[in-house]
Amino acid sequence: MKKIEIFDSTLRDGAQNESVSYSVEDKLNIVRYLDKLGIDYIEAGNPFSNPKDHAFFSRVKELDLKYAKLVAFGSTRRRDSRVQDDKNCLALMEADIDCISIFGKASCWQVKEVLGTTPQENLRMIFDTVSFFTKAGKRVFFDAEHFFDGYKDNKEYALSALRAAQEAGAYKLILCDTNGGAFPDDIGEITKEIVQIFPGKVGIHCHNDMGCAVAGSVMAVKAGADHVQGTYIGTGERCGNTNLSTIIGDLQLKLGYTCIPQEKIVRLTKTARFVSEVSNVRLAHAMPYVGKSAFAHKGGMHVDGVQKNNAAFEHVAPEIVGNQRHILLSEVSGRAAMLTKISEVDSTITKDSPEANQLIQRLKELEYEGYQFEAATASFELVVLKELGKFSPFFDVELFRIIGEQDTAGKHNMASAMVKLRVGQRWEMTADEGDGPVHALDKALRKGLEIFYPSLSNVKLIDYKVRVMDTGKATAALVRVLIESTDGENVWTTVGVSTDIINASSRALIDSMEYKLYKDQTMKK
Amino acid sequence: MKKIEIFDSTLRDGAQNESVSYSVEDKLNIVRYLDKLGIDYIEAGNPFSNPKDHAFFSRVKELDLKYAKLVAFGSTRRRDSRVQDDKNCLALMEADIDCISIFGKASCWQVKEVLGTTPQENLRMIFDTVSFFTKAGKRVFFDAEHFFDGYKDNKEYALSALRAAQEAGAYKLILCDTNGGAFPDDIGEITKEIVQIFPGKVGIHCHNDMGCAVAGSVMAVKAGADHVQGTYIGTGERCGNTNLSTIIGDLQLKLGYTCIPQEKIVRLTKTARFVSEVSNVRLAHAMPYVGKSAFAHKGGMHVDGVQKNNAAFEHVAPEIVGNQRHILLSEVSGRAAMLTKISEVDSTITKDSPEANQLIQRLKELEYEGYQFEAATASFELVVLKELGKFSPFFDVELFRIIGEQDTAGKHNMASAMVKLRVGQRWEMTADEGDGPVHALDKALRKGLEIFYPSLSNVKLIDYKVRVMDTGKATAALVRVLIESTDGENVWTTVGVSTDIINASSRALIDSMEYKLYKDQTMKK
Repeated sequence: MKKIEIFDSTLRDGAQNESVSYSVEDKLNIVRYLDKLGIDYIEAGNPFSNPKDHAFFSRVKELDLKYAKLVAFGSTRRRDSRVQDDKNCLALMEADIDCISIFGKASCWQVKEVLGTTPQENLRMIFDTVSFFTKAGKRVFFDAEHFFDGYKDNKEYALSALRAAQEAGAYKLILCDTNGGAFPDDIGEITKEIVQIFPGKVGIHCHNDMGCAVAGSVMAVKAGADHVQGTYIGTGERCGNTNLSTIIGDLQLKLGYTCIPQEKIVRLTKTARFVSEVSNVRLAHAMPYVGKSAFAHKGGMHVDGVQKNNAAFEHVAPEIVGNQRHILLSEVSGRAAMLTKISEVDSTITKDSPEANQLIQRLKELEYEGYQFEAATASFELVVLKELGKFSPFFDVELFRIIGEQDTAGKHNMASAMVKLRVGQRWEMTADEGDGPVHALDKALRKGLEIFYPSLSNVKLIDYKVRVMDTGKATAALVRVLIESTDGENVWTTVGVSTDIINASSRALIDSMEYKLYKDQTMKK
Repeated sequence: MKKIEIFDSTLRDGAQNESVSYSVEDKLNIVRYLDKLGIDYIEAGNPFSNPKDHAFFSRVKELDLKYAKLVAFGSTRRRDSRVQDDKNCLALMEADIDCISIFGKASCWQVKEVLGTTPQENLRMIFDTVSFFTKAGKRVFFDAEHFFDGYKDNKEYALSALRAAQEAGAYKLILCDTNGGAFPDDIGEITKEIVQIFPGKVGIHCHNDMGCAVAGSVMAVKAGADHVQGTYIGTGERCGNTNLSTIIGDLQLKLGYTCIPQEKIVRLTKTARFVSEVSNVRLAHAMPYVGKSAFAHKGGMHVDGVQKNNAAFEHVAPEIVGNQRHILLSEVSGRAAMLTKISEVDSTITKDSPEANQLIQRLKELEYEGYQFEAATASFELVVLKELGKFSPFFDVELFRIIGEQDTAGKHNMASAMVKLRVGQRWEMTADEGDGPVHALDKALRKGLEIFYPSLSNVKLIDYKVRVMDTGKATAALVRVLIESTDGENVWTTVGVSTDIINASSRALIDSMEYKLYKDQTMKK
């Protein structure tokens, strides 16, 4: 069980992602979560690049981290100057951080064309900067930028960049495929050569511009690298960085390396959902190991196969990574799949139960109306519970009315909603306006419900999807609305169908609230 | 420039994706687009699995495909029966399709555990089924399910499954990593062995459960496979299939293979956006080559580097694949592409025209607001005409109001709309109700407009699509509405964007009417 160091750059390289921007609180939360997972290093930016990062680095010291070491990030000194006079290097030194990541160029072409200096001066920049920090007792990671392109172009020069860093006492030499243009087999072969020269010192940092970042990193590890850099859910500039939630699964579960403590593997999924939420980046349903659909089976044959033997269509078991198997209901899956899903909600129901036929009948009616429960398992659960008489309603929406108005050129544009609720023998009428009719309805509904159920204030809607079915009917077509909600811990999806989009949305919204209340109730029991 | 066959299964394996469901029109549209890209084979389901697929296969014959061949998909015959009596095989045979894809098991373990038959009978099932179709002159692709797992487990048996298909006359033997659990280097090595035994007959079909589908397929091609299966934007069961838009880029642009005609490479991005829109699957911004952020540069260093020399941080140039460089914070992209589109509307506009800058500015503003004119060329034309002062308005919607009401259990559910129109110096106020607010608005608007423009009564809306963007904001998110209209002769598509779905729909509706009236006017001239 060879140990592979995991180096997470969600907060640095991941923050280069289009539309990602972290507050200090966000960063602290992500550090806490990654530490709980047992990540070795967390690269979190440059303490002096902006006030926000400065505030973060002073507050992060308050955290009592168990596994992770914080890493500050900076560049080699400027050309033709002394490192002792370099403002950035001095600032990095002043920060009370033990680990420093220094990037420098390993491609001769890049040195001349982009850096605009001589190959010799670039090597001195690397040596001076790395030794500046190692002499002060810091652990230095040297990011050899454009390493693979550089190596193919001018092997000797790329090696001399690594040698400069090594002679200056660097802890690891990170081979970076900065543009994401190196294929996994090339990465594997080149890494093998480098590991022979610098044994025990080689790390890998890939980008996903050819869809091969994870594979390239796996090949590097197989070739002897013992340090993998990436971002937890693959965020990053352009096409992103190596996805750590994927590669930890690959290396630890499939190849027998140790990346994180074995008992932490079950946190892989939870951590991905947390990071995606804090980053406000949607977690791809198809993301290996941690995505919502990563273990979802839809085709009739596959569903049969999985039911006979899980290993038939799953390369690892979902529970191991804290994820779940989903049997999707669709045109191609039948009664057996429905029964499996039903028994997940109520394990007493079997194919011979008297309720089974009635339930399947009801589900088929709903499917005929356009409902699809494959994604909306929360709505499915509610249908089953209601049909079995195991759900007592928390509230009743007696009436709602929405009004949308718009004048010429959209100068006046208002959407508002009124809702009349009943909870037991109490009635509540609320109103609110929003960015559109559904938003207005959502706000008015919550305003009323939170009076009775304060826990609903934690519920946040994180995804809203509209699917127009039967599009031949154009604006009179049936629409299916899917809403994904979270209370910070769990994520659930509900569905509503109607020819009226407001109506369909209201059903999915109401289901979402009911599901949360039901789950709170059963937890208490 | 070795030719690699590209086999797209977006409509079959891709339809196994959670939440994907295609109408017949959707499928026909995707076939048309993939053919235009120069894809070799399009696998589109089983004509007899459900009425929708049946309708598709009879209508698809009307299409005049230039590059692509349609493939129908089915399984080997049932165990212990004659293929001549197998309903599914007979049905497949009756379908007037020249290419057939047959899947069968290549893993001895799977045969016993999942199929529940003997290894010998499974080989007979493969042989009988493949030869049933080859004898009838069909081109048969044999999908060797679980091939890599099977090969590692029982090499001889996996080979005998391939041999059975070959002896029965299969055109290609497809090595399937059905569970997505094989690493790229293993896939490469095993494929090499298989290619030596069956030269010129080997294809590859990978799944992305370890994030390695593209890399695995690349390794297989390097090892001699000359046929790649996948789905165009990587949709598929669980973690999805090999992403063809990525691997076409990798193989053709980076490794010098020929996948599609070279002049079609520029359509890679456009096709991805089209397929994602029709599939209602969000195209990941980070998707290699075709994603919105695939060439986005944010880090200061990278932006500098790219501006000095594009190759500094780009492994291929975005224009080649029809995408755009995106310098975040300083928009300097896309000018050339926009000019090309503008000159399609008005050929007098060139890059030196005084109007060009102003027009591009306006289009960029609209794109920033969330407009996308990829599919909505009618709206694009209107924007250009209006900006150039070449469009005199036919009408003005001064005000509209929509009201939606619903009581308990939806017994009373009404959507109504009022519209106040001005045409010249005449005003008209109309109202109508509908199946939802957009339908009501559509009806009320037409009721008023037809008084002035009777030709609008021929206009029918044939498609209505809603796309929720920026989903982190849930019900307050931006929505993009696409409306496809026809007057029986022409078909045109318009777009509207707003946080308010009614508002977005009204814009697309109004554009549709304006476009029809403009076209009628120019025809008369």
